[in-house]
Amino acid sequence: MPTILGQNQYGKAENRVVKITRDGATHHIKDLNVSVSLSGDMDEVHYSGSNANVLPTDTTKNTVYAFAKEHGIESAEQFGIHLARHFVTSQEPIGTARIRIEEYAWERIEHSGKGAHSFVRKGQETRLTQITYDGESWEVVSGLKDLVVMNSTDSEFWGYVKDKYTTLPEAYDRVLATQVSARWRFNWSDDAQEMPDWEQSYEQVKKDMLQAFAETYSLSLQQTLYQMGARIIDSSGEIDEVRFSLPNKHHFLVDLEPFGLKNDNEVYFAADRPYGLIEATVLRDGCEAKIPVDVTNL
Amino acid sequence: MPTILGQNQYGKAENRVVKITRDGATHHIKDLNVSVSLSGDMDEVHYSGSNANVLPTDTTKNTVYAFAKEHGIESAEQFGIHLARHFVTSQEPIGTARIRIEEYAWERIEHSGKGAHSFVRKGQETRLTQITYDGESWEVVSGLKDLVVMNSTDSEFWGYVKDKYTTLPEAYDRVLATQVSARWRFNWSDDAQEMPDWEQSYEQVKKDMLQAFAETYSLSLQQTLYQMGARIIDSSGEIDEVRFSLPNKHHFLVDLEPFGLKNDNEVYFAADRPYGLIEATVLRDGCEAKIPVDVTNL
Amino acid sequence: MPTILGQNQYGKAENRVVKITRDGATHHIKDLNVSVSLSGDMDEVHYSGSNANVLPTDTTKNTVYAFAKEHGIESAEQFGIHLARHFVTSQEPIGTARIRIEEYAWERIEHSGKGAHSFVRKGQETRLTQITYDGESWEVVSGLKDLVVMNSTDSEFWGYVKDKYTTLPEAYDRVLATQVSARWRFNWSDDAQEMPDWEQSYEQVKKDMLQAFAETYSLSLQQTLYQMGARIIDSSGEIDEVRFSLPNKHHFLVDLEPFGLKNDNEVYFAADRPYGLIEATVLRDGCEAKIPVDVTNL
Amino acid sequence: MPTILGQNQYGKAENRVVKITRDGATHHIKDLNVSVSLSGDMDEVHYSGSNANVLPTDTTKNTVYAFAKEHGIESAEQFGIHLARHFVTSQEPIGTARIRIEEYAWERIEHSGKGAHSFVRKGQETRLTQITYDGESWEVVSGLKDLVVMNSTDSEFWGYVKDKYTTLPEAYDRVLATQVSARWRFNWSDDAQEMPDWEQSYEQVKKDMLQAFAETYSLSLQQTLYQMGARIIDSSGEIDEVRFSLPNKHHFLVDLEPFGLKNDNEVYFAADRPYGLIEATVLRDGCEAKIPVDVTNL
Repeated sequence: MPTILGQNQYGKAENRVVKITRDGATHHIKDLNVSVSLSGDMDEVHYSGSNANVLPTDTTKNTVYAFAKEHGIESAEQFGIHLARHFVTSQEPIGTARIRIEEYAWERIEHSGKGAHSFVRKGQETRLTQITYDGESWEVVSGLKDLVVMNSTDSEFWGYVKDKYTTLPEAYDRVLATQVSARWRFNWSDDAQEMPDWEQSYEQVKKDMLQAFAETYSLSLQQTLYQMGARIIDSSGEIDEVRFSLPNKHHFLVDLEPFGLKNDNEVYFAADRPYGLIEATVLRDGCEAKIPVDVTNL
Repeated sequence: MPTILGQNQYGKAENRVVKITRDGATHHIKDLNVSVSLSGDMDEVHYSGSNANVLPTDTTKNTVYAFAKEHGIESAEQFGIHLARHFVTSQEPIGTARIRIEEYAWERIEHSGKGAHSFVRKGQETRLTQITYDGESWEVVSGLKDLVVMNSTDSEFWGYVKDKYTTLPEAYDRVLATQVSARWRFNWSDDAQEMPDWEQSYEQVKKDMLQAFAETYSLSLQQTLYQMGARIIDSSGEIDEVRFSLPNKHHFLVDLEPFGLKNDNEVYFAADRPYGLIEATVLRDGCEAKIPVDVTNL
Repeated sequence: MPTILGQNQYGKAENRVVKITRDGATHHIKDLNVSVSLSGDMDEVHYSGSNANVLPTDTTKNTVYAFAKEHGIESAEQFGIHLARHFVTSQEPIGTARIRIEEYAWERIEHSGKGAHSFVRKGQETRLTQITYDGESWEVVSGLKDLVVMNSTDSEFWGYVKDKYTTLPEAYDRVLATQVSARWRFNWSDDAQEMPDWEQSYEQVKKDMLQAFAETYSLSLQQTLYQMGARIIDSSGEIDEVRFSLPNKHHFLVDLEPFGLKNDNEVYFAADRPYGLIEATVLRDGCEAKIPVDVTNL
Repeated sequence: MPTILGQNQYGKAENRVVKITRDGATHHIKDLNVSVSLSGDMDEVHYSGSNANVLPTDTTKNTVYAFAKEHGIESAEQFGIHLARHFVTSQEPIGTARIRIEEYAWERIEHSGKGAHSFVRKGQETRLTQITYDGESWEVVSGLKDLVVMNSTDSEFWGYVKDKYTTLPEAYDRVLATQVSARWRFNWSDDAQEMPDWEQSYEQVKKDMLQAFAETYSLSLQQTLYQMGARIIDSSGEIDEVRFSLPNKHHFLVDLEPFGLKNDNEVYFAADRPYGLIEATVLRDGCEAKIPVDVTNL
């Protein structure tokens, strides 16, 4: 046979689970989108169609919902760890489980009625995590996407290479805006280690990322990116690696001179495409990079 | 000729304008998506292709950017009023101008650096307005979309009609969630009237809408919708009409019995499609409805 | 009470139904997205939450699936007519039913195996229809969206109004491209009239629209729009009115002079936003316009 | 310093270029979305913000448009090769260039007018390619996305593992539908080798993929996937590896029994989420897998 099977994985993607926890009249919610991906001894289902080693994707979906009841959802990371452990330890043919979760944040609606069971979706960034377990060690990569930030000054861009296709004028005061997509890898990998506080860690990372963006006087988006990553690693001992994918959301100063007006860095056109795309990994010194470089695909 | 021209309009859609206002080291931003639509004496451009009455859509785009400088952007509504008045009064063939604006909200990034020019997009609802001017009177319809809300209890649904295709069991404690799309019409229509405070009005409407959603013990989404509209009109004398389009974002209780588990209103599947869709107008008594009933198209 | 209820409607939106018809080893498919909207005597459900007049949206969903079996799906229009008639005639409180349908086209995969049950989605335009029935007369408005067309020459734009904000140079050879959104209204309104052949009519309209676009030497997108509408009405006696919403998908000639190159109408930048937006109705002479002017909302 | 820079890359993403080639009155078009990504000696721009080694992303955009004129666009692959070679050979700090291209297909509008310069977008799949060059060897991975296919019979699913969370009944005649995302790697890697005919190769791969899907009697989507990959490698000697990401687009048989109807594999509900997701690589025997396993990110 001239062809062979390579890496393969399967599971149920995008299981939307909402968990309500009732503390009397005060309710708490967790709103997740959970994707299960399993791999292992699966050659035969590809070669002959035999499903003898295949736990149906429908079963993986059922397990997500059952586990929301059985284990609750303390955090997306903790929930993913329960799931990954279950699939690897309960099914002999499954060698590795990868659980990806998106989490949508809600906040309470302030009101004068009784009870506390009314919520409005925050709608800012989407929180992410990916749990991978091979029966021996854990890899937890968390992150976020769609966090849009802007500095309206304190950004320059000059001193770059000029070739025959270069027409860009140098800029000494520009808008810097991006839609942050970030992933960070925890150094927790072993059940014997103490687990990080996943919720607290997330809040700290988001805060550091925003503050580093705001406080960096930027000569390039790359420089800002690096500062964001370094701030996270400095501040969060549980994290060894951060990967960013930062589109440079261009805000072009509109030429108002034809109308007899001076545009003193006031009126901008926010462009869609094309956009600069800056991607890089920031590592704790001495650590190995493990997040795939095409990070947008977590 | 067997065919004739009916209603027509044209303009430049989705002009993305970001306006930075510098108050020393403290910056303020307005981030709008402005669409211009003009109509009037435009038969010939359709019949013969003569552009003699046509102000190019490119010019309407330029006007948006020039006006951001000339008039500033105090509010989306005020900005739309400047634009609509300009087109109708400066171009004889143009009888009516309609300006639609989406506004994206930003909040400041808290940090310890100097200056206040760093922002993160809030990302919750998108604010909307539509200004229509025919040279004599004004119609201002503002609104919002993509505001996702949920009550995790205090919602029932029973006592409905049952025909041969009805299988739905009655519910005495269900999740009620929707993604609010709303439009409200101001009774300001004449330059001689005092103009509403557009920014303050918006904040009040949003607050009333959320509180009415939270405080209504719901026997149907229609009832909740009506309470939301009534609260707005009661509270905001400048508004005569509200139109809602509310998808019933179903959260189905997952059947965990096959796994020996009891689902005590804890674990839900958040479904995408199909969804219930509830649409209605709420009016100040004695006022005429003017918002088109397919409100999602503002 | 200071507020009253205005127009209202409700139903289940986006019921995705796929119907397979087996003619031996040859299968046929219809792939629809059906939205039901009902209105009538529904004041109480808004005012008090009483569902005594409410047929649940879940029931309307069940009816869609049951009718796919009971009546088959000869065409989207015919299917919508069955549904609308059912709701209005079987439920006393329901005065009007509006059924909106999107249809996705498939074509057969050519292959050498036996049977004919393999399909690939065409993916070009989405076909649309809206059926409205009030118990007495019918309104059928069909249409399409997302049909992207381009003429790479035979388009000009000049002779337009120039004001102080006009900077656009006149163009004597430009690319004309648009993404057609069209709706057309049939004059069939009464069960006593012979029904049009909905499938054949659609094919004719699409063909006429494309050919009129291609064959019109264009001095403005408005002129092309009118020709497209007039061609349809001339050719299809069953149609009295056409409404178009045509974004002018700008293709800007890239300035290559800085690189010592001449761009002889060869290299274009396809822009996203902003875009011109041209909307108009074309009517059979003597007929009344009934399609809402904000046609994108059908 | 406790942090260091890891892998990084930058460039201008999503340059939309449309190239018209005029062969008298007959025009030809190529419609691409080109993303440039460069990497090399870029530490300083991250550490200090020095742009001394940075060719601006704006320049990479200009180069895309200039090259469309200078080299034409024979195929997306050939165009990407010109670009990648240019960046690596002309800029000393740049070690590797990766060019990703999406291509949108158009077909001619048949009409009776003169000339052949009118087109309608096909709208089926989006064609993809990725060219990577490090100054020595080439990697070309082409592909497609959003090709939606369905078999309305000849698919079964049974004999799978059953655990305590398994409720799925076995199926002996089901609909099998998926939205194909595929990437395939060419074994051309050296300028000394003869280059494949990129256009012809694409047509052959798409045809093989569709036919293998149609002709495989399927016991699992994995089996169908493997047959699709094997068919491509058998048929196209220039390709060594294929990676698929196949969502199982579930079509659930609707239970019509409550309405006294029998659903004889006729009426289906097409579900959105969750969906099964089957991903695998098929390799020419003896070849090494190089396409990243999270292929959806090409």
